Amino acid sequence: MENYRKFLLLLALSVLIGFVSVLFVLVWVFKWREGLGWDGGAAEFNWHPVLAVTGFIFIQGIAIVVYRLPWTWRCSKPMMKSIHAGLNALAFTLMVISAVAVFDFHNAKNIPDMYSLHSWIGLLVVILHSIQLLLGVCIYLLPSAPAFIRTAAMPLHVYSGIFIFGAAVATALMGITEKLIFSLKDPPYKNSPPEAVFVNMLGLFIVVYGALILWMVTRPQWKRPGEQTSATRESAANEEDSTMAENGAFGNANVEHGGDTRKRNLKVDEMGQRSTM
Amino acid sequence: MENYRKFLLLLALSVLIGFVSVLFVLVWVFKWREGLGWDGGAAEFNWHPVLAVTGFIFIQGIAIVVYRLPWTWRCSKPMMKSIHAGLNALAFTLMVISAVAVFDFHNAKNIPDMYSLHSWIGLLVVILHSIQLLLGVCIYLLPSAPAFIRTAAMPLHVYSGIFIFGAAVATALMGITEKLIFSLKDPPYKNSPPEAVFVNMLGLFIVVYGALILWMVTRPQWKRPGEQTSATRESAANEEDSTMAENGAFGNANVEHGGDTRKRNLKVDEMGQRSTM
Repeated sequence: MENYRKFLLLLALSVLIGFVSVLFVLVWVFKWREGLGWDGGAAEFNWHPVLAVTGFIFIQGIAIVVYRLPWTWRCSKPMMKSIHAGLNALAFTLMVISAVAVFDFHNAKNIPDMYSLHSWIGLLVVILHSIQLLLGVCIYLLPSAPAFIRTAAMPLHVYSGIFIFGAAVATALMGITEKLIFSLKDPPYKNSPPEAVFVNMLGLFIVVYGALILWMVTRPQWKRPGEQTSATRESAANEEDSTMAENGAFGNANVEHGGDTRKRNLKVDEMGQRSTM
Repeated sequence: MENYRKFLLLLALSVLIGFVSVLFVLVWVFKWREGLGWDGGAAEFNWHPVLAVTGFIFIQGIAIVVYRLPWTWRCSKPMMKSIHAGLNALAFTLMVISAVAVFDFHNAKNIPDMYSLHSWIGLLVVILHSIQLLLGVCIYLLPSAPAFIRTAAMPLHVYSGIFIFGAAVATALMGITEKLIFSLKDPPYKNSPPEAVFVNMLGLFIVVYGALILWMVTRPQWKRPGEQTSATRESAANEEDSTMAENGAFGNANVEHGGDTRKRNLKVDEMGQRSTM
């Protein structure tokens, strides 16, 4: 219980920092830039940071830890997979709109597309996320994939999810850097006007949010309990994906944690908290 | 054996990409910028990207995976800890010289220090790395720390090491973005002159290098075998740090992997490859 108090405290802190990040990006575009609009101008560009931070940072982060929320352990695994995929699909949709806004803005202003390192890595991350989403749905959500493929693909699925999230954070930091240099002219970025300090703080919040999500998703003790007890484990090979898909520990998706997991499973069974056994 | 062929292939690929990154940063400063010097001018600034990429990206990456190189498993654990700490100390030293170069350059040119997000996160990463190095030496290298502290601190040590490395990669990408915007004027960055494309490729190589290091260090099957067999495991509590310190899997530092680890340990014992038993 003490252990879960820590988890819930960190979860509350990361949701708070995620909200503050979204709030900061909104304050930035409304207080110092031209607000939001869809007219090919600066107000349309502003959807880019707003939707990227909301979708590809905040929502993607929540999608990564959603299996670990203790109150979701009562929900069935297919439902949790749908929520995980749904949140990622929402993040992807917001990111695509965010990208359209910036391409539209570039076209209207005759600015070339895809010249910066931010755009190169950003496009790469969006493509990787779309592949991850498509393969994730085909392998884990649809019932057609054989168990051995689900098992074999899980370490890569977990690693890719965390890598894509980390790369999205890095891309956001490059985007903030670019935008502040381009838009702050009088006084310039190097004179640290209030907007520069405020948006640098947004960058720091994004890093702290990323660090908290990565900490929470890589603690083995906070994994969603397995779908089977030790007694039924070996005979349920075709259910293997159930224990794999929930494993958020970076790179340890195909490792059984022996007695610890079994004890937790039995404890949860005793408490009658499980609906998917 | 097949498994280690894969590891060695990935290791060779990451060393190659790491070398190419260092080569690219050198070509950048010698072909398009003012080369290297220590005169308060642009040539002094250029030590900043050269030493940061060499030390805080390439060498820090190697320090992270050094326990996993199969030919080091013959070496004693204290020697491997010293090499791990030594590589990190070298990375830190190069990073400090790199930072001095940029502060010197700013002073000579009357450019303010520490105004950009790159500098904020960069300084944070250097401070975190120095704390990690200091605590790492005190807890794992000096013989004075009790075993329970070594065990308790290991998950945080592993997580922090990987987080600091990832943040260093993100900081390098921000630095590249800044430098290209500031230094490319005619033609500007947005017109994609050869220097821009070349240095964007350097950024991509750094990301790929980071991704490979993170993949290698988070595969449980490539961990250095434990320091004890199952028969002696429970009676050797004061040696616990030996199995902990080698665990590079993100966040699973305090998890025993049951049968798999034991089988590997026994196999290594049979092969007579161990010097620290």
